[in-house]
Amino acid sequence: MNIALDMMGGDFAPLETIKGVQLFLSENNHDDVHLTLIGDENKLIPLFKEYTMNPENFTVVHAPEVIEMQEHPTKALKEKQQSSISIGFHLLASGKTDAFISAGNTGAMMVGSLYSIKAITGVARPAIGAYMPGENGKLSLLVDVGLNADCKPENLSQFALLGALFSTYILNNKNPRVALINVGEEEGKGNILCQAAYPLLKENERINFVGNIEGRDLLLDKAEIYVCDGYTGNILLKFAESIYDIVQKRKIDDEYFNRFNFEMYGGVPVLGVNKPVIIGHGISTAGAFNNMILMAKKMIEQNFIEKIKNEF
Amino acid sequence: MNIALDMMGGDFAPLETIKGVQLFLSENNHDDVHLTLIGDENKLIPLFKEYTMNPENFTVVHAPEVIEMQEHPTKALKEKQQSSISIGFHLLASGKTDAFISAGNTGAMMVGSLYSIKAITGVARPAIGAYMPGENGKLSLLVDVGLNADCKPENLSQFALLGALFSTYILNNKNPRVALINVGEEEGKGNILCQAAYPLLKENERINFVGNIEGRDLLLDKAEIYVCDGYTGNILLKFAESIYDIVQKRKIDDEYFNRFNFEMYGGVPVLGVNKPVIIGHGISTAGAFNNMILMAKKMIEQNFIEKIKNEF
Repeated sequence: MNIALDMMGGDFAPLETIKGVQLFLSENNHDDVHLTLIGDENKLIPLFKEYTMNPENFTVVHAPEVIEMQEHPTKALKEKQQSSISIGFHLLASGKTDAFISAGNTGAMMVGSLYSIKAITGVARPAIGAYMPGENGKLSLLVDVGLNADCKPENLSQFALLGALFSTYILNNKNPRVALINVGEEEGKGNILCQAAYPLLKENERINFVGNIEGRDLLLDKAEIYVCDGYTGNILLKFAESIYDIVQKRKIDDEYFNRFNFEMYGGVPVLGVNKPVIIGHGISTAGAFNNMILMAKKMIEQNFIEKIKNEF
Repeated sequence: MNIALDMMGGDFAPLETIKGVQLFLSENNHDDVHLTLIGDENKLIPLFKEYTMNPENFTVVHAPEVIEMQEHPTKALKEKQQSSISIGFHLLASGKTDAFISAGNTGAMMVGSLYSIKAITGVARPAIGAYMPGENGKLSLLVDVGLNADCKPENLSQFALLGALFSTYILNNKNPRVALINVGEEEGKGNILCQAAYPLLKENERINFVGNIEGRDLLLDKAEIYVCDGYTGNILLKFAESIYDIVQKRKIDDEYFNRFNFEMYGGVPVLGVNKPVIIGHGISTAGAFNNMILMAKKMIEQNFIEKIKNEF
């Protein structure tokens, strides 16, 4: 399998991407993985030498341009065809690579996923899943966290299935529970979207729907997948991230709150597109890049995209 | 002034309501305040004796019924006319009292506020504000946290003004900043509601609008009022409350996270109705009840309702 990594993406690239690749190559037996490292050769080659990495394990694809974090996604993808993200999507779409990972411009990664890789037939709206650290030590998945600010009830029902498949095949949860994020537990509660989504989720036989959960239940052992619109999910995720920032700033060293370090989990998958795409956090360091390569490897090994296609 | 308190509302009533009243009467000079204590005389009178409270400072109004926490609000208000909440709203609506406080059934308090006290003319949708503890030691107000699961852009603009008036006159902030909770900072970001609300907030000359803020900014010093629909606000508030529960459970004693104890702030005001109504948390203890009486006193002293009427 061939996994491509944007070497220029993230606040600490390319140093941390290089170190992440080195970590991946050193840690386990990854003979079946060939890495495609996309970025500015002039910056990368001296670093490969410095970190004495065996060139047999990877191919470098030169990308003279970089889409910066603050650039407008669609405009940047159009104008910077030679950027690492543009080339990454080109290689993935043309079948030369099997997965693409970047911690670069999130918007460009989303736009590229939707317009270059495209949604799987039957998936109306791909979504992004993010991890929520449960108090019980487990990880739940929050879907959607940003691709779809406005959703229809059917979208939420599809997010539930996409999340359940990821939870089953990538996080190894058997028959994972799906809950709808809402303002009360009873059926009929909530905004119009939730009121209409609830019966669809209840009738969806391919998921294990356990009903509504409230904001206070998100960190408890109530479900493995939490479904909401992308506006709500994005705000919740960023709020949770800020809690970790404050915990760090206040020098609180607590085993549970340390798990709010979202970097631990690498990146977040784009669910419902035709190839594995993983979006990393801007502040990703070596460990996060290593985790993202491992996640991509697992998605390929599990034939995850085929499993989604079979369900839609 | 005459402030009414539901003595039977809350998980620890009537013991903690009694202790809260005692605290209020002992703490300061409140000669201008007469309290109307509504509840079951048979339970209250022995406690007044036990806590040696001076009956000159209050009047007891007997309420033989209680609306329990899990009852359906509209149904309970209709069927239990002799409940403490029903009597509380009756006294307030008829002008016999000047404010009403309860930590009882939240839904019944909302329904009572909307249908018995009613919205101020010009206020399309009253809202509930809740405090968010800022990292800088200050308190911000999150509006709405649950009255309006679905909102129109004009509602958000009105919540902004209601919140700004509360922040100005009750929390003593001069020209408080209003921010819209969104998925990105730039104008044009977000769901359809936020996209449409942004220009209304920008054009609203009676508020100091500072733009969008993201989930990660809610605890920072970005604004004094955060505006969002009641679905999002409710989920955010309950999520924040759960953080405090976990902090306590994990025995983390941190000055900042201790401020996530929402009980410290007493209750939350119903903004935009014709009289001061304050809703307490179910787990309220004496300190919370004392704080709620103080808030009601300040709302009356400041002629807060008149100030809202003048703006709408």
